[in-house]
Amino acid sequence: MTTSPSSDALRAWFLGPRAENAELLERLLTEALRDHVFWRRNFHPEDGLTIREMDKRREGYDQAVATLTQELMGLLAELKRGVPFFSGRYKGHMAFEQTIASQVGYFAAMLYNPNNVAIEASPVTTRLELEVGSQLARMMGYDPERSWGHLTSGGTVANFEALWVARNVIYFPLAARGAADELGVELEVECPGGKRGRLGELDLWELVNIHPSHAMDLWDALWQAAPRKDVQAALHRHSLQTLGYQEYIARLDRAFGDPLPPSVVLVAATAHYSWEKIVRALGIGSNQLVFVPVDSHYRMDPDALWEKIRELSDRRVPILACISVCGTTEESAVDRLDRVLEVRERARKELGVSFHVHSDACYGGYAAAVTWDGEGNRRSAEAIRRSVNGDGPADPVRQGWPSQEWVRSMEALAGADSVTIDPHKLGYIPYPAGAIVFRDRRVRELVAIDPPYLLPTQGLGSSEDLFLGRFVFEGSKPGAAAAAVWLSHKVLPLDERGYGYLVERTVAGARKLYTTLSELDADPFRLILLPEPDINIVCFLVTHPSLKTLSEVNRLNEGIYARMSLSVPGAQPRYIITRTRFQTPMYDGAVDPVLERLGVGSVEDWKAGGTEGLVVLRSTVMDPFLADPDTPDHATGLARTLLEEAALALGEAKEPPA
Amino acid sequence: MTTSPSSDALRAWFLGPRAENAELLERLLTEALRDHVFWRRNFHPEDGLTIREMDKRREGYDQAVATLTQELMGLLAELKRGVPFFSGRYKGHMAFEQTIASQVGYFAAMLYNPNNVAIEASPVTTRLELEVGSQLARMMGYDPERSWGHLTSGGTVANFEALWVARNVIYFPLAARGAADELGVELEVECPGGKRGRLGELDLWELVNIHPSHAMDLWDALWQAAPRKDVQAALHRHSLQTLGYQEYIARLDRAFGDPLPPSVVLVAATAHYSWEKIVRALGIGSNQLVFVPVDSHYRMDPDALWEKIRELSDRRVPILACISVCGTTEESAVDRLDRVLEVRERARKELGVSFHVHSDACYGGYAAAVTWDGEGNRRSAEAIRRSVNGDGPADPVRQGWPSQEWVRSMEALAGADSVTIDPHKLGYIPYPAGAIVFRDRRVRELVAIDPPYLLPTQGLGSSEDLFLGRFVFEGSKPGAAAAAVWLSHKVLPLDERGYGYLVERTVAGARKLYTTLSELDADPFRLILLPEPDINIVCFLVTHPSLKTLSEVNRLNEGIYARMSLSVPGAQPRYIITRTRFQTPMYDGAVDPVLERLGVGSVEDWKAGGTEGLVVLRSTVMDPFLADPDTPDHATGLARTLLEEAALALGEAKEPPA
Repeated sequence: MTTSPSSDALRAWFLGPRAENAELLERLLTEALRDHVFWRRNFHPEDGLTIREMDKRREGYDQAVATLTQELMGLLAELKRGVPFFSGRYKGHMAFEQTIASQVGYFAAMLYNPNNVAIEASPVTTRLELEVGSQLARMMGYDPERSWGHLTSGGTVANFEALWVARNVIYFPLAARGAADELGVELEVECPGGKRGRLGELDLWELVNIHPSHAMDLWDALWQAAPRKDVQAALHRHSLQTLGYQEYIARLDRAFGDPLPPSVVLVAATAHYSWEKIVRALGIGSNQLVFVPVDSHYRMDPDALWEKIRELSDRRVPILACISVCGTTEESAVDRLDRVLEVRERARKELGVSFHVHSDACYGGYAAAVTWDGEGNRRSAEAIRRSVNGDGPADPVRQGWPSQEWVRSMEALAGADSVTIDPHKLGYIPYPAGAIVFRDRRVRELVAIDPPYLLPTQGLGSSEDLFLGRFVFEGSKPGAAAAAVWLSHKVLPLDERGYGYLVERTVAGARKLYTTLSELDADPFRLILLPEPDINIVCFLVTHPSLKTLSEVNRLNEGIYARMSLSVPGAQPRYIITRTRFQTPMYDGAVDPVLERLGVGSVEDWKAGGTEGLVVLRSTVMDPFLADPDTPDHATGLARTLLEEAALALGEAKEPPA
Repeated sequence: MTTSPSSDALRAWFLGPRAENAELLERLLTEALRDHVFWRRNFHPEDGLTIREMDKRREGYDQAVATLTQELMGLLAELKRGVPFFSGRYKGHMAFEQTIASQVGYFAAMLYNPNNVAIEASPVTTRLELEVGSQLARMMGYDPERSWGHLTSGGTVANFEALWVARNVIYFPLAARGAADELGVELEVECPGGKRGRLGELDLWELVNIHPSHAMDLWDALWQAAPRKDVQAALHRHSLQTLGYQEYIARLDRAFGDPLPPSVVLVAATAHYSWEKIVRALGIGSNQLVFVPVDSHYRMDPDALWEKIRELSDRRVPILACISVCGTTEESAVDRLDRVLEVRERARKELGVSFHVHSDACYGGYAAAVTWDGEGNRRSAEAIRRSVNGDGPADPVRQGWPSQEWVRSMEALAGADSVTIDPHKLGYIPYPAGAIVFRDRRVRELVAIDPPYLLPTQGLGSSEDLFLGRFVFEGSKPGAAAAAVWLSHKVLPLDERGYGYLVERTVAGARKLYTTLSELDADPFRLILLPEPDINIVCFLVTHPSLKTLSEVNRLNEGIYARMSLSVPGAQPRYIITRTRFQTPMYDGAVDPVLERLGVGSVEDWKAGGTEGLVVLRSTVMDPFLADPDTPDHATGLARTLLEEAALALGEAKEPPA
């Protein structure tokens, strides 16, 4: 094959499945270590030694080194039972190896162990974190000057923070109304219908339906209308944060004669299970998680969304937020966010209803990099398609990605109020590295807090930005994670030259696997492929003419999974995949075409099976080398192994004779 | 000085202020790296190479390596502006260098990048995390078989999880009551007063005052009384997690005619600011954070706690939890937890009131290691005192630690319902490593969740323990953190031989600094020392006869801080300390003796100053070498520097003439 600068570079970005770049990694790590060592030696050299050479010859020292070395050997031996994420044979969860840049960046900063809670404990890495937040915001299409982004320990905390902030934004007009009344100031606000109105004249339904941006304009207006200290105290007396739900709802009841039903959160039916944790913990309650059906591509159905909103509006149920997914955990499905935003706009105009729109792009966020060229301009779907197909044989499956609609969905991220993106997923960064970006940086003020220590002084670079712990949910956190993401972004820019190329290669790999599986002569088995993925997760299941019930088919696929995973202790699978279960009601509708093609068991049988659901095998293609014709053909290898393991699993799948 | 096995070993535990152990660290890191490299090469060697030597000679590859190397050099240069936590000259926040074991353990596992969300992504490190959880539980005095512990990204998330779980435990009897009614089963429970009663006959006040352990017994009883599926569904219909606050409170109102006032959380007035974030996010509301005054040693006052409880009981305000602190962030004060638990017992007997007791030992948790000898027995205060004083000159300040009461407070951790402990603080582990342990492992079922994927199969080691994401708030998280803590605990056991010794040395160092400062001839300045610390944070402030107002004294100390910190860009302080502000109402009462000794400004002046408060300088002694007579005398160095900087800062402190 011919090569391009990016395809050449790809081979320098990772250690490699054979650790082909071991010398490079070792050189850089050693450099980082020694650089740190000599930094220590250069700091007040007049202080002399604390640990002397003679100390190292004492028995206790020697014993401690022996213990350390011995236990490390034990750990290293244990670690070998880990998962070979690095290998082309691993096609399971969203895990691969990490970029060398992120590994070295993490390690180099870890030696300094900065804590990004505040600049005082991380003069360098807090700035790197803000820079990374800004880069991610730009990749989403946000204005870096007006947005706000930072890292988190992972996606759950990031999504939690998004909803926590959203609740404060949506309820802010209520707090502002109470505060303004108390302060005797009159404020104007853009009402749900679009006209400007007096805050004091809105009813409760209108107040909870003010567009998030207009709520924040109200924030600005309130602070300008009265002295800071008074505003602060008055807001304090009227906000949910202070009052807590019980008193807050009681007050609404007293003030408006009816607190309205509990506010709900709309999510795609396929949303990650952590959303249930999140609404439980926030006190919203999982009953208030309203699931929006997905279509047969596992994307939130915009028409169904509209219907839900209309129905909720009829019952005057406030909506806190709508969670759209960019890259579902199971299928890598990308919601049509552009259409979700259109629905919100329509709801605002026709129903006077508004809410926060959040994109859970924890998995798929980095795929937005493919939409940018090296000059900061958007690329057309056509240009991306040319690049994905590369110079390999013309491949219709590969040529089909991305669609115009996919590109529009990605560009629509710029219109979401917040987006969560995990660098430790498609960013190929070591754990822990989650991230969140908000379109409107003012929102962080609504959750800000002032601790007694760590207050920035005058001299401290002055900007309040430098004390992250004030504005984010977490406190102490590794500056090393910021350095890892930062260095990786330096080496792999967030556009077609870097991360965009990397994601394209994984898509090309997923599509190669898809084509290989679809062209496979599976006889006597039948391989059923789910729709072509929006990013890089290939889902499929295997059946056999002798299997007559859903449970039998499920057992066959569970059996294949058991043979192609590390789930059985001591297993040495040749290829590693994973599996999920499509259950009711999450997959209602979406599963119908699959069951039809399966020809075993009806939708009713599937529903009656409850949590058993339909077992679906999954291969996440994080491996950017898979599509390359010069590398081992793991697509064919996986496909052949699948059939061999299916043959072995078949016997156990059938119902025992009655 | 003579040495002991532990004092010798101490010198092998850290890289050292001059990087004296650089060779050791480099050897172990290289070992870990190469071991990983050859693991990759041994995995299906028949697959051949993906990155060939020829590929490394292409221009694009070379450019990528150049970019990586260049940017890494840039990062390394940047990092040198970081904080020299490793140096004896750093006596600021709770930060020092990390144990070599934890650095190497983190690095070794990071190469494998396991994700401890589930065993499928971390077959090794999930087990290490459970082992570490069990070790920490044992250090708290818990029964490892009946307790449950795991790592978190940090203290905020750990404390959040504690209160989230506590809320579910305290409200469980209410859900059980609703579920039992629906299922038509009758259950008995131990009532607040101590007698057994029928659940269906208790009133709301009694239901929310059932002791946490009895609430969990009720949990067991309910599951035994009816089929699992029915219980699950019924609980689902009655729990706060499902209903959310708004509907939950409305139901209480309907069922009992009065929902009672909002439940409160008792905290020491000096509790970490994150508690405010936590109650806000949980929907409890910061108004429900009831501050219990501290005594002049900054410990929660048990008598004041009793008074608060009695008063709340009179008003029939339910208490969710009482948060006691083991090692305050500002002063390292250790609450008399034994007395807090006595107060709870008294409240149960005399008032029929109960609640969850949580110890926020994020900072001080590892200090419990000093109470254990190498055989798993508790040590006496006397034995510890002998060890702390070592063989140096008899030092009354050093000899005074620990008191009998301190040891009892530590032993009382065994009676708390939950404890949070940050390995990344006194555990000398790199960020991120927080932890939480619950005395009763059953509580985790109250927050458990079942995601569709990652379901353990039969073969999967079978235990449900192996899918951590089910029971904890976070999802994806670094298995490397577990390996770091695990390896460090192997080298430094959680008793007098390892972490106990390490903490003792920091206490000895803090007391050496305390003695040095108290014996300092500060003329013309006056140095006011706060009480001897419970662990290792020395607080003090400087004044001068010419300063006549609190603001002037505050300005002097702010000026000293600015000169002895990295808060001013480009600063090159000789010693680094930090500072806090004692503000009203948190320090009401506690600050009085300090103001009295200061002789400038009354308590009323201080209160009138509001957030300005009293600026207090702080030195956290994490450095275990400080007390060693053979090492550079940084206690004297810091004291001298303090006076020199005070002289320079004095001019700016005075009020300009009117």
